[in-house]
Amino acid sequence: MSYSNAVQELIDQLGRLPGIGPKSAQRVAFYLLKVPREDALSLSQAIIEAKERVSYCERCFNLSESGDECPICVNPRREDGLVCVVEDSQDIVAIERTQEFRGRYHVLGGAFSPIDGVGVEQLRIKELMSRVADEDISEVIVATNPNLEGEATAALLVKYLKPMGVRVTRIAMGLPVGGDLEYADELTLGRALEGRKIIDGSETAPAAGTV
Amino acid sequence: MSYSNAVQELIDQLGRLPGIGPKSAQRVAFYLLKVPREDALSLSQAIIEAKERVSYCERCFNLSESGDECPICVNPRREDGLVCVVEDSQDIVAIERTQEFRGRYHVLGGAFSPIDGVGVEQLRIKELMSRVADEDISEVIVATNPNLEGEATAALLVKYLKPMGVRVTRIAMGLPVGGDLEYADELTLGRALEGRKIIDGSETAPAAGTV
Repeated sequence: MSYSNAVQELIDQLGRLPGIGPKSAQRVAFYLLKVPREDALSLSQAIIEAKERVSYCERCFNLSESGDECPICVNPRREDGLVCVVEDSQDIVAIERTQEFRGRYHVLGGAFSPIDGVGVEQLRIKELMSRVADEDISEVIVATNPNLEGEATAALLVKYLKPMGVRVTRIAMGLPVGGDLEYADELTLGRALEGRKIIDGSETAPAAGTV
Repeated sequence: MSYSNAVQELIDQLGRLPGIGPKSAQRVAFYLLKVPREDALSLSQAIIEAKERVSYCERCFNLSESGDECPICVNPRREDGLVCVVEDSQDIVAIERTQEFRGRYHVLGGAFSPIDGVGVEQLRIKELMSRVADEDISEVIVATNPNLEGEATAALLVKYLKPMGVRVTRIAMGLPVGGDLEYADELTLGRALEGRKIIDGSETAPAAGTV
C-alpha cells in the first residue's frame, strides 16, 4: 500500500517547499489530516489571500499589499536621496528592525550568480539606475549578503552607478556583536581588521592595504 | 515595518505546522509569494482536496479515500484473524513497505501518555476489543513504537486483550540491520541479547531472566 491519491498529492506539494524534505512533508501532511477542518482550511486560505493581495511595489519592488507603491515608498517622512539596496524583501524587514535606517529601499530580487542563471538581466539593476537618474538620490547603500554572490553584486552596482555620480557605499563587515574573537573565521576577522575605526572618533581608519 | 497583514497571516499559519519554526515559516511564505500563482494555489488546493476526500476507515481507523472501509480492510486476500496494532496511519505504510505482513491493521491514534493527555479513553482500545470479540482474531501483533509510551501502550493492550483469550505479541527489538554493535546504546543491546535466537533454528531462545 502506498498513500491514497489525495494524501500523496498533498505530500508531494508540501515536499516542494524549501527546507521541507520527504519526511517532514509526510509529517506535515498527516498533521493537516488530523487537525480540525477549519485549521487546515485557514492555511489553504492564507496562501490564496497572500497570492491575491500581495504584489510588488512599482518603485522599490518590496512586497506591497496597499496598492502601487509600498508603505515605505509612500511615507513622506522617509529621507529622500538615500536608498538601501537589498537582495530580497525579507532583508528589508531585518534592516527595519534595527530602526537605524530612515531612507528608502530597492529590492534587486537576488544576487549576481551566473552559475545559477542569475545575471545582470535577472536583477533589477536597470530599474535602480532609472531611480538614480530620476529621483534625487545622493547615496546608494549596498546591503547585499556578505558572501561571494553579495560581494559580486556590490562590485557590479559600483560599476553601473559610480559613472552616474552617485555615492555608493557598502555596509560594514566585521565581528558580530557579542561574538567571540577566538571563534571568528579568518575572513571575518580580516574584514574586521581592515574596517577598523579610530576609537576616539567615528571615522574609519584609512584602509592601508596591509594591516 | 513588519509584514503586511496577508503575509504575516501566511507566516503565522505556516508556523503552526509541526517542525516549522518562525524562520522556516518566513522562508516558505516568501517562496510561495515568489513562485507562479498556479504553483502556490495547487498547494492550497491539495490541502482542501485531502481534507474533503480523506476520512478514517470505520474498521481499522486507517486513512481511507475510498469510502467506509480502507483498501486493506476490504481486501479479501488479507489474512483474517491477524491484526497488527499501530499508533498512526504512517506506521501502516512503513510496515506495508516490508511486504512481510499479510494481515489487517488497527490504528490506535497515538500512544498511552497521561502526561500529554492521552489516556485509555483517547486511544481506540475499546474499538480494538470489539473487533477481537466480533471478528475471528487469533493474534494481535503490537507494533507501537519502541519507546516508553509505546511500551506502556503494549502493556495496556496485554492487560485488556489477554483476558479475551487472544494471543498478544510484540514486534522484536534489537540491533538495526546494518548497524554497528559498538555504537548501539545499552538499552537496544540489552534487548538484542534478551531476544537472542538459536542460530540453527528459528525459535527464540527462552528468556532466562539473566543473560
